[in-house]
Amino acid sequence: MPLGIHHVGVAVDDLDAAIERYAALFDATVEHRERVDEQGVEAASLRVGASRIELLAPLGPDTPVGRFLAKRGPGMHHVAFEVADVSVELERLRAEGAQLIDEEPRHGMFGLEVAFVHPEATGGVLAEFVGNG
Amino acid sequence: MPLGIHHVGVAVDDLDAAIERYAALFDATVEHRERVDEQGVEAASLRVGASRIELLAPLGPDTPVGRFLAKRGPGMHHVAFEVADVSVELERLRAEGAQLIDEEPRHGMFGLEVAFVHPEATGGVLAEFVGNG
Repeated sequence: MPLGIHHVGVAVDDLDAAIERYAALFDATVEHRERVDEQGVEAASLRVGASRIELLAPLGPDTPVGRFLAKRGPGMHHVAFEVADVSVELERLRAEGAQLIDEEPRHGMFGLEVAFVHPEATGGVLAEFVGNG
Repeated sequence: MPLGIHHVGVAVDDLDAAIERYAALFDATVEHRERVDEQGVEAASLRVGASRIELLAPLGPDTPVGRFLAKRGPGMHHVAFEVADVSVELERLRAEGAQLIDEEPRHGMFGLEVAFVHPEATGGVLAEFVGNG
């Protein structure tokens, strides 16, 4: 069962420009920044007050975020829920018959375990579980 | 300066079905439910752990959420940041030259003061400020 929203993921064209904009508009500060070649993305985790916004810039057009930008333009990409144990959540969703993108947790950015739930399952929202286990 | 994410707003076709789905997938519980005719929407505020998801169903096709659904389909609609004073944030954003939807706070759902920032200002994200003042 989710403990709350871990972050909202936002697809952007230009990571540096977006970081600057979020700092000016929402007093956001960069917590981590990481390039993840296997996911085709450069990401920055921003703190906005007690919450997090994750900015995602594609490393090229033929990446998941690159295709998202080409289709929908920049904007909200996913919502991530913090959970105690990602495997337990996946098992629970499988039992509900929910369509998953990741059948098992995988190593995500910033040393966390993550798994994505298909938007088909949620009614159009790409959802992520994030946890330490 | 935002204190954190107040809620993530999600546009849905069928409010009852979405509430049921979020309960099954994310252990969400309904905190408030309200029909707001002047905004053309029926809304439900769900608790997911310590956080909130706001589900928005249009009262008809010729409403902001109805047009959003026709154009983009169901999915994430906006992100709302909790602030101490909505007027102060609007003044701050005006000073940054940010494009606003609401020039002054207005009465939102659930007895809160709200104002929307134009996606043009944020890089594609419809952002809302929510506060008591």
